[in-house]
Amino acid sequence: GAPGAPGFGGFPGQPQDPMMGYFSAVAGQDGQISADELQVCLTQANFSGAYKPFNLETCRLMISMLDRDGSHTMGFNEFKELWNVLYAWKQHFASIDRDQSGSVDPQEMQQAVSSMGYRLSPQAMNGMIKRYSTQGKISFDDYVACSVKLRTLTDLFRKRDQTQQGVATFSYDDFILCTMTT
Amino acid sequence: GAPGAPGFGGFPGQPQDPMMGYFSAVAGQDGQISADELQVCLTQANFSGAYKPFNLETCRLMISMLDRDGSHTMGFNEFKELWNVLYAWKQHFASIDRDQSGSVDPQEMQQAVSSMGYRLSPQAMNGMIKRYSTQGKISFDDYVACSVKLRTLTDLFRKRDQTQQGVATFSYDDFILCTMTT
Repeated sequence: GAPGAPGFGGFPGQPQDPMMGYFSAVAGQDGQISADELQVCLTQANFSGAYKPFNLETCRLMISMLDRDGSHTMGFNEFKELWNVLYAWKQHFASIDRDQSGSVDPQEMQQAVSSMGYRLSPQAMNGMIKRYSTQGKISFDDYVACSVKLRTLTDLFRKRDQTQQGVATFSYDDFILCTMTT
Repeated sequence: GAPGAPGFGGFPGQPQDPMMGYFSAVAGQDGQISADELQVCLTQANFSGAYKPFNLETCRLMISMLDRDGSHTMGFNEFKELWNVLYAWKQHFASIDRDQSGSVDPQEMQQAVSSMGYRLSPQAMNGMIKRYSTQGKISFDDYVACSVKLRTLTDLFRKRDQTQQGVATFSYDDFILCTMTT
């Protein structure tokens, strides 16, 4: 086929993905987005609201979530996937945050977590929500951090809960690997 | 005894703890320091170096570590304890950071973690260090976050490893409580 025809990805003349220019500017020379580059980019796009810096911890969690090659950075396809996921979460968050204040209260957060299908005791639920609260409210970045982490840890647990009885056994090294790298 | 004599804590005339005025100013009206107040205070004291904001995540971890009443805030005695611990960690960090750049490289971090007595597989060690690195280096706040979290998770694991064989069983709820609130 002629240059630019389908199937010749990367050939000159092919229409570029509209996100590519943006991705390249954020990623810089190495062509990969690290957690601190992602923080700059999400802060500039005002994902956190009120133009405050997007939480770096949340950026690390999101990169881990999509990190299939263990590089702790993000290529173009992972970046596009994250961007779409973030927009969906932002919409879900806005639907919980009825007064559009940019943060939700613990009761709204509890309903959101339950609606995602997680069954937790009041102790675990309250402990978790308190942990992600600032002045009694949960911001968008903390909502994302909490959701991503809960999903990742639940997946890791399920893989080890072979009889699906809600009980799993960990070696010390495996426990540290699961909990210190998520 | 006369006012101000030993044993009459809080009586007028008793010499005040020199840290008390500072604590009161940071804590504000509620007399308790929350994670965001601690962040402001540690940033102003330049614990992170180079006057960049001290990591909020690390502040939350440190409050959890000392949080005996589950309030997620810190009273005066806990604040003094934290202040002393932080100075000790800052000194340990400075001894690892031989070129005094304010951050350490993965190899130095690995030696520091091993010298604290933790035995981890190369996979867990490398995964953990990568997780706390920014541009291939570990800053003081991330060093503290990593150390506090590793200690807390190791303690939680040991309490469940009743035969001390390096293996522990968790229910799903307990696993989430341990990992989502540390």
